[in-house]
Amino acid sequence: MTQSWKSLFTDETKGKSFESMTWMSPEGLPIKPLYTAEDLEVLSDLDTFPGLSPYTRGPYASMYTNRAWTVRQYGGFSTAEETNAFFKKNLEGGQTGLSVAFDLPTHRGYDSDHPRVVGDVGMAGVAIDTVEDMKRLFEGIPLDEVSVSMTMNGAVLPILASFIVAAEEQGVPQSKLRGTIQNDILKEFMVRNTFIYPPKPSMRIVGDILVYCAGHTPQFNSISISGYHMQEAGATAVQELAFTLADGIEYVKTALDRGLHVDEFAPQLSFFFAIGMNFFMEIAKLRAARRLWAEMMAPFSPQNPKSSMLRTHCQTSGASLTQQAPLNNIVRTTVEAMAAVFGGTQSLHTNAYDEAVALPSVASAKVARDTQLILREETGITRVVDPLGGSYYVESLTESLYQEAKKLIAEIESLGGMTAAVERGLPKLKIEEAATRRQARIDRGEDVIVGVNKFVTPDADEVSVFNVDNTKVRDLQVKRLTDIKAGRDQQAVIQALSALESGAAGTTNLLELSIQAMRVRATVGEVSSALENLFSRHQPAFAGVSGVYKSEMKNRNEIQDVRDVVQKFAEKHGRRPRILVAKIGQDGHDRGAKIIATSFADLGFDVDIGPLFQTPDEVAKQAIENDVHVIGISTLAAAHKTLIPQLIQILKEMSAEEIHVVCGGIIPPSDQKELLGLGVKAIFGPGTTVVESARKVLSLLE
Amino acid sequence: MTQSWKSLFTDETKGKSFESMTWMSPEGLPIKPLYTAEDLEVLSDLDTFPGLSPYTRGPYASMYTNRAWTVRQYGGFSTAEETNAFFKKNLEGGQTGLSVAFDLPTHRGYDSDHPRVVGDVGMAGVAIDTVEDMKRLFEGIPLDEVSVSMTMNGAVLPILASFIVAAEEQGVPQSKLRGTIQNDILKEFMVRNTFIYPPKPSMRIVGDILVYCAGHTPQFNSISISGYHMQEAGATAVQELAFTLADGIEYVKTALDRGLHVDEFAPQLSFFFAIGMNFFMEIAKLRAARRLWAEMMAPFSPQNPKSSMLRTHCQTSGASLTQQAPLNNIVRTTVEAMAAVFGGTQSLHTNAYDEAVALPSVASAKVARDTQLILREETGITRVVDPLGGSYYVESLTESLYQEAKKLIAEIESLGGMTAAVERGLPKLKIEEAATRRQARIDRGEDVIVGVNKFVTPDADEVSVFNVDNTKVRDLQVKRLTDIKAGRDQQAVIQALSALESGAAGTTNLLELSIQAMRVRATVGEVSSALENLFSRHQPAFAGVSGVYKSEMKNRNEIQDVRDVVQKFAEKHGRRPRILVAKIGQDGHDRGAKIIATSFADLGFDVDIGPLFQTPDEVAKQAIENDVHVIGISTLAAAHKTLIPQLIQILKEMSAEEIHVVCGGIIPPSDQKELLGLGVKAIFGPGTTVVESARKVLSLLE
Repeated sequence: MTQSWKSLFTDETKGKSFESMTWMSPEGLPIKPLYTAEDLEVLSDLDTFPGLSPYTRGPYASMYTNRAWTVRQYGGFSTAEETNAFFKKNLEGGQTGLSVAFDLPTHRGYDSDHPRVVGDVGMAGVAIDTVEDMKRLFEGIPLDEVSVSMTMNGAVLPILASFIVAAEEQGVPQSKLRGTIQNDILKEFMVRNTFIYPPKPSMRIVGDILVYCAGHTPQFNSISISGYHMQEAGATAVQELAFTLADGIEYVKTALDRGLHVDEFAPQLSFFFAIGMNFFMEIAKLRAARRLWAEMMAPFSPQNPKSSMLRTHCQTSGASLTQQAPLNNIVRTTVEAMAAVFGGTQSLHTNAYDEAVALPSVASAKVARDTQLILREETGITRVVDPLGGSYYVESLTESLYQEAKKLIAEIESLGGMTAAVERGLPKLKIEEAATRRQARIDRGEDVIVGVNKFVTPDADEVSVFNVDNTKVRDLQVKRLTDIKAGRDQQAVIQALSALESGAAGTTNLLELSIQAMRVRATVGEVSSALENLFSRHQPAFAGVSGVYKSEMKNRNEIQDVRDVVQKFAEKHGRRPRILVAKIGQDGHDRGAKIIATSFADLGFDVDIGPLFQTPDEVAKQAIENDVHVIGISTLAAAHKTLIPQLIQILKEMSAEEIHVVCGGIIPPSDQKELLGLGVKAIFGPGTTVVESARKVLSLLE
Repeated sequence: MTQSWKSLFTDETKGKSFESMTWMSPEGLPIKPLYTAEDLEVLSDLDTFPGLSPYTRGPYASMYTNRAWTVRQYGGFSTAEETNAFFKKNLEGGQTGLSVAFDLPTHRGYDSDHPRVVGDVGMAGVAIDTVEDMKRLFEGIPLDEVSVSMTMNGAVLPILASFIVAAEEQGVPQSKLRGTIQNDILKEFMVRNTFIYPPKPSMRIVGDILVYCAGHTPQFNSISISGYHMQEAGATAVQELAFTLADGIEYVKTALDRGLHVDEFAPQLSFFFAIGMNFFMEIAKLRAARRLWAEMMAPFSPQNPKSSMLRTHCQTSGASLTQQAPLNNIVRTTVEAMAAVFGGTQSLHTNAYDEAVALPSVASAKVARDTQLILREETGITRVVDPLGGSYYVESLTESLYQEAKKLIAEIESLGGMTAAVERGLPKLKIEEAATRRQARIDRGEDVIVGVNKFVTPDADEVSVFNVDNTKVRDLQVKRLTDIKAGRDQQAVIQALSALESGAAGTTNLLELSIQAMRVRATVGEVSSALENLFSRHQPAFAGVSGVYKSEMKNRNEIQDVRDVVQKFAEKHGRRPRILVAKIGQDGHDRGAKIIATSFADLGFDVDIGPLFQTPDEVAKQAIENDVHVIGISTLAAAHKTLIPQLIQILKEMSAEEIHVVCGGIIPPSDQKELLGLGVKAIFGPGTTVVESARKVLSLLE
């Protein structure tokens, strides 16, 4: 029988064998064209039950047949009032949990009046400076009923403290709070960069929160161990899986070191994964994650089953969305949402179709939410637990991912665990390498993105874009800060902040101290700054992988063509074209900047890489000092409108107009026009190939 | 182990047992909350191979790993030139096959200048009157390379003949033609009503085409046996499956009766299914269909494996789309498209998001096409054949559907086969009953439709609507007809038509004769009319199921409330409120009209049902003769703009303005405004509950 199938296969494929048609996934997993019952025979785990260890088929026995996943849309922008209105609208529209996006100044522990954050206030999230802002954020939303997830890592102490105090003043005791705080600092050093302090004190803060929550907030998850940002930064499924679970174990060890028993905190650990477009890979990833976690927790001998039960939030992939033909993103998000559901997620955020263009609008946010409601209500897919269980392919893929991730986790362990690995930069480099490979596969057309590198059509869908008036938000926040500072008991604040500073030097629980500080109306920035005095502010190195892009692009002609032009430029001008790749503002997403920097270097450019979190002033100075021809700004967090015009102005003032400014990232069409009018020479949207952008830059220099 | 799962399940569900949480699907299939390896033990067919009988896992061994499904978007509107431009644009954009939508006059064998079709020309498809139109339709499209599917049943002879002649004059011989003609007349009598002649002569035409294609067009599928329209009309998956395959067997018998050997024609049979929102049900349906067909063909002892290999086209469900929040339809269509792909379809049409509002626009058609391209290129789902094969649930559901459909097919067989069953009206009634039950489930909120009966939000997405200028198209077509008639060899036409007429009386192959007639430039209307002289034009009875809606709605208060109002009306006026439910124009989709007619009767109204295909004049006359209070027009094919204003005008002229006109169906918002301005009293869009519309009608009568 198998033989007759094989020969039929070869007939149909005009001579290709079954083996030769095996696809190597980006993870390096061989995917065969057909899986049969035979494939199940070699599996080490099969036909287990949902709700029972190792939870491959789901953490709960009844899963969605009893209660569907939580529809938890991540959102936040501008002021607390506006976000509050947005939350309420979403809850009325069928959303079942909240998830707060904070603006970057808040993430990085700056108050809205700090001079470094002028362009970022209220842009990519809501600005929260004090408890009063937090109270406005949840005004009329019962915090004992609606569960709240907060994506916060850097300024986790003042933010969680404000949340607790706001709830308290709403009449909700800590014991009744439901939700999650992200509090996953390790991955920040790998990929997202919204840290404040160096790794070691950061881990101490994580520990303080685990301890505090174990004692005070039994229904609130004290950490959300996140692979999401790894995938967004380019990690493969194996990397996302392995690094996330290895991070998890690191936090477990941290809590154990602090004297907690495993069952005191492990039930409060939650996870967060990205769900990208590789449909079955993502399903298998979640199944494998649960199995791995149950195994990895076993050595700690938990008695409570919940301690080894991986529960997760998922978000569809922002990186998979395209600026071109935005409505196509509804298709992508639907596919991803289905994968999350088939993987057995506990809650889900679905991206809005315009997120590759701008912040979500009310209309696009509604479609995103309705996507989940339609899946839940209209498709029947909630009727059966783990409906793909038993599939020859899905079970085999689950096993492969499990095995590969296990190997990578062992590698991390052999380096001394994740903190050590992070300090050595290993995970970061592996992810960057994977990201560059992916970019090369796109650039050479092997990975197709519809509307980007294939089936490109000139008709763009018109979408109306949502805008935040950054200046208005900042002015309001600054006024509120002034008012609060005028009205509070200054002495109490000074005391609380100084208690924090000595707590940082000692062992008192810093969340405990932060709650006291926030209660007397200290600000997020003041608390962060008090700790910074002792812990210092982390300055990351900003290095990149070299040679990957070139080797992935092999001997393609367009690469050589660009290198030839670069060579000619060098011969004519006596030096290579030189570009400063820079990030300005508090946006730490550096995948794009890294790829451009390393692959431009591969193409023969002299490349300078600026540190993260620069002001326009600092960028201009570095560019002039290094005598670059071009500054390439990568911007993904909506601060471009304020900061890029400033940069151009400063270059003018410093008589350095001859330095070209180009940008890449997420810039809505209307803003593009404005920036080009102000003197930006070129804007590269998502989907531009590296070669294309290099060509354009070179043509500017002619 | 199982026991511990069961008790955990009961814990989580607060006391509900596993058995009590079993869901009865609309098909009457019990869907359990969990499937395990145990469920596979009772299956009668498992772990077969794709490409090998019974083809459960796919008709081909390599499936999409070797060649993806054909992206075949159904389209056509206005004139041949405009549709040709649309086709070319779609092919450039990545579409891989064509599928022609003809306008209703063409379907029903009327030339564009016929007085009965004034409102329908060019509206819901392209107007084709002669070979010249067909040549314009495919101008610049190589018919030996691009496969063409033609949805044509009524006027199948002149249309297929025109296609063959157009190709011939393009230089493409019949032997090289690729594609399909629908040619499935049986389902027209059940659900779609675009027949011309009565069942018996219609079946003779089908036979002539099967015979002709077996001899002349080896690469062209001579029939597309269609369940699509059954599901659209409300059939369950079991009904769609059983009736379609039973239709198929009827065609097989027809061809055998005509002296063909099974292997001469069976490889040219193709199928066409709808893919609705019940995700796993649809996947299982396609898998079960292949298995059933292979078994059903076995008694005819085919030697060629292709003779028992079910290959199918699929289209996502139009009936699942909502007029409310049209962008949500992108989500629905994506889900459905995935089900079609996991079911193993050979080609696919994905609906545009605005199809519940209007004809697809260029922008919405692009998103629909891109949906398939994204699934094909970005998700990895084409890498593995039958990726869900082995899933405990999917395999169990496949078996259940297989068993249930088999029972229903046996029932049909016991009635003497499908032609006999259709003549007795049995399948039609079963489908109408299922449709009414579905409507009742929606009306009582059990079946949720997001944005329609739950999560209703006032913000409607703005979509720009595509409009056809019907008058302009008709004028152009009329001019062309005049020109052709002036320029052709009239004697040759008369001869060809009279040959057809005697052929209809005798046994000469009617497709052969039609080709000769079209070659000398006879028109579609002339050929149809020549045959009509002998065969007559079929006038269907238009009856409905009674009592189903009432019994499904049980003792719900709103039902009794409406019945009370009706009762009061009767007491006051001496008779019950009387409504004429009518269809005007050539649109035969009568699901909506049937549901309204039968459930209004259940609510206590006196209901008259008009025949299909009426002119405004005929509707007005019937309304006046029956002295009705209200005329309810159901319109789904875009002719409302011309015909409803005419109806209102005629009522005025006949001094019957007191008869209220209300409409339901697919009417774009801009047209709604216009119609309301002209005197239409109420318009009920998709999603209006029966009770709601009855209340509104009653309030008009106060």
